[in-house]
Amino acid sequence: MTAFDSNVYAERRKQAAELVAARSLGGLVIGTGPEFAYLTGSWTTSHERLTALVVAPDGIAVVAPVTDIQSLGLQDAAGVEVVGWRDGEDPYRMVAQRLGEGPVGLGSSLTADHVFPLQSLLPHTELAAEAVAELFMVKDAEELAELAKAGAAIDRVHQRAAELLQPGRTEREVADELHALILQEHKSVSFVIVGSGPNGANPHHDFSDRVLEAGDPVVVDLGGAVPSGYQSDCTRTHVVGEPAEAPQDFLEAYAVLERAFSAACEVARPGITAGELDSAARDVIDAAGYGDYFTHRLGHGIGLSGHEQPFIIAGSNVVLREGMAFSIEPGIYLPGKWGMRIEDIVRMTADGVEPLNRTRRTLGGNNG
Amino acid sequence: MTAFDSNVYAERRKQAAELVAARSLGGLVIGTGPEFAYLTGSWTTSHERLTALVVAPDGIAVVAPVTDIQSLGLQDAAGVEVVGWRDGEDPYRMVAQRLGEGPVGLGSSLTADHVFPLQSLLPHTELAAEAVAELFMVKDAEELAELAKAGAAIDRVHQRAAELLQPGRTEREVADELHALILQEHKSVSFVIVGSGPNGANPHHDFSDRVLEAGDPVVVDLGGAVPSGYQSDCTRTHVVGEPAEAPQDFLEAYAVLERAFSAACEVARPGITAGELDSAARDVIDAAGYGDYFTHRLGHGIGLSGHEQPFIIAGSNVVLREGMAFSIEPGIYLPGKWGMRIEDIVRMTADGVEPLNRTRRTLGGNNG
Repeated sequence: MTAFDSNVYAERRKQAAELVAARSLGGLVIGTGPEFAYLTGSWTTSHERLTALVVAPDGIAVVAPVTDIQSLGLQDAAGVEVVGWRDGEDPYRMVAQRLGEGPVGLGSSLTADHVFPLQSLLPHTELAAEAVAELFMVKDAEELAELAKAGAAIDRVHQRAAELLQPGRTEREVADELHALILQEHKSVSFVIVGSGPNGANPHHDFSDRVLEAGDPVVVDLGGAVPSGYQSDCTRTHVVGEPAEAPQDFLEAYAVLERAFSAACEVARPGITAGELDSAARDVIDAAGYGDYFTHRLGHGIGLSGHEQPFIIAGSNVVLREGMAFSIEPGIYLPGKWGMRIEDIVRMTADGVEPLNRTRRTLGGNNG
Repeated sequence: MTAFDSNVYAERRKQAAELVAARSLGGLVIGTGPEFAYLTGSWTTSHERLTALVVAPDGIAVVAPVTDIQSLGLQDAAGVEVVGWRDGEDPYRMVAQRLGEGPVGLGSSLTADHVFPLQSLLPHTELAAEAVAELFMVKDAEELAELAKAGAAIDRVHQRAAELLQPGRTEREVADELHALILQEHKSVSFVIVGSGPNGANPHHDFSDRVLEAGDPVVVDLGGAVPSGYQSDCTRTHVVGEPAEAPQDFLEAYAVLERAFSAACEVARPGITAGELDSAARDVIDAAGYGDYFTHRLGHGIGLSGHEQPFIIAGSNVVLREGMAFSIEPGIYLPGKWGMRIEDIVRMTADGVEPLNRTRRTLGGNNG
């Protein structure tokens, strides 16, 4: 069962074919993963055996092991030639035969064990990440509705987080309960981060056996996929017990973080670049003297993949457009002491961003 | 927590460095995944942000986002330089700077979005799949013990399969119970296939809402990972009710399949090639007239990855050695009718193969 009707995928493949023509490419070769799912509806993978969607000037084909053809469910897809290969045959040659003149774009998820054999047959290959992102970066109304569902789903989990963060419990105990709550609201869990005290200073810490104490700042970052495959991703920072029990330097920095988050939301509108948006938040944090402790980009696009273009990063000239969906997630991390992050997924409208996450962002004893 | 003591990984990295020297490589660049876990003990991934182990003539480094350094747990690893990079910095340049003269081998799991930026900085890259496989193809005693545990774990699940396959139940109901049983015996589920009747003819069918009927042949292929990360993978074919209720042509073909499986086990010994082993089973199936319906290779290596070298495939000149572990899994698939497969993981000893799966392979009302 695909997320949308088959004609949605047919239309997306038509746009991919138009992009191949407009850029005079020999074609696109898209490996399995989010890009493939975007264009076909299928999440089937065949690992070390090549499965690829080939978008060539002369037509579109899927090349896959005969053992996986049925699972792909593309036998009846309009305008797609289904090419099965058997162990011992050369699938790379089958791909190369279907491509036209010009540079061939390889999708970003193709692994090296597929990239090198393709390169040995094709005189000019290039990374197709930017090209393919042109297809999926701007979401349509149905996709935005799925992302809104995902946002509401993770919000319902975050609503329960504060009550779980009791002194004497471990990060792991809390994370296990959050994991179960995410599964109640999603079809799968993408990640669970419960970073208390000094663990919060590691932005990608997951969870540990550390015991929570009153006054501990705790970074809670949660994500999953709803049945259509669209992802949620939201971070809230809590204090175990009452905010007033937290370290004074933490509370001062949190006020800076809130201003940085607001500054980004206020400046965001169609036409500014991803780099400018990153700066809007970073300038606030820099000015307050915490610049060295905001160690990552401001955000990332989201859709069928948890992290995708546009990346909201210093120096990026990608122009933000209506219909894009991405995270705004400034953070401050003091090694050995504490960490903090506020993260919402937002969608770009005609005149600014609208958050898809709606639980309160202020520190509080209860998130309700 | 890594599967083995830290000196195990240090020794593996030493072997990787020796391989770089012996082959006069500029180095190896290994992306996250099973190859990385083999050499470091860490399964951390950073997706679109590069994390790579760099094995260069002058030393070994791990290049990773600063946000992931702590999670990698390699700060104290002997002889590993830990290089953190921040969003906006160029990790590919940090990798390239550490490499020496000569061709640079890229690990098979590096994705195209990392391969192309590396290629733009390095004059000569090549796929390092064969080179890296030299490191992990032959398992040591500890690894074989983990694979034996994994085999015993999936055997305990298979013991329960026959009783679940009752007329009137759906493939999905059975698969859900098998999923839960695999989790009881493993830390994670890799796949569950319950292919009844015509669905069994699709080797990579997972499961559906098809209702089981008496006399249906059912292919049950199950796998998971034990806590150390080593994988299980075993297939049994059942008949709902009594074997005598199955179609006559199925029963005849099953006898051929059993002979093909036995022929491969009997011929397997150190020194024969993977291609010769594939032939041993395939010749039996060909001679019985089912050659067109054995649509995949005979088997694949297994370890931290579910499918890895050596691949037991027609034409392969890879010489099988003592200590290798791989599947032997002949199958016969009649489209629209039924399918069958027998799969054991075996380990190569000095004088032949020893199965790591021990549930009965004959058709029976009960697998016990």
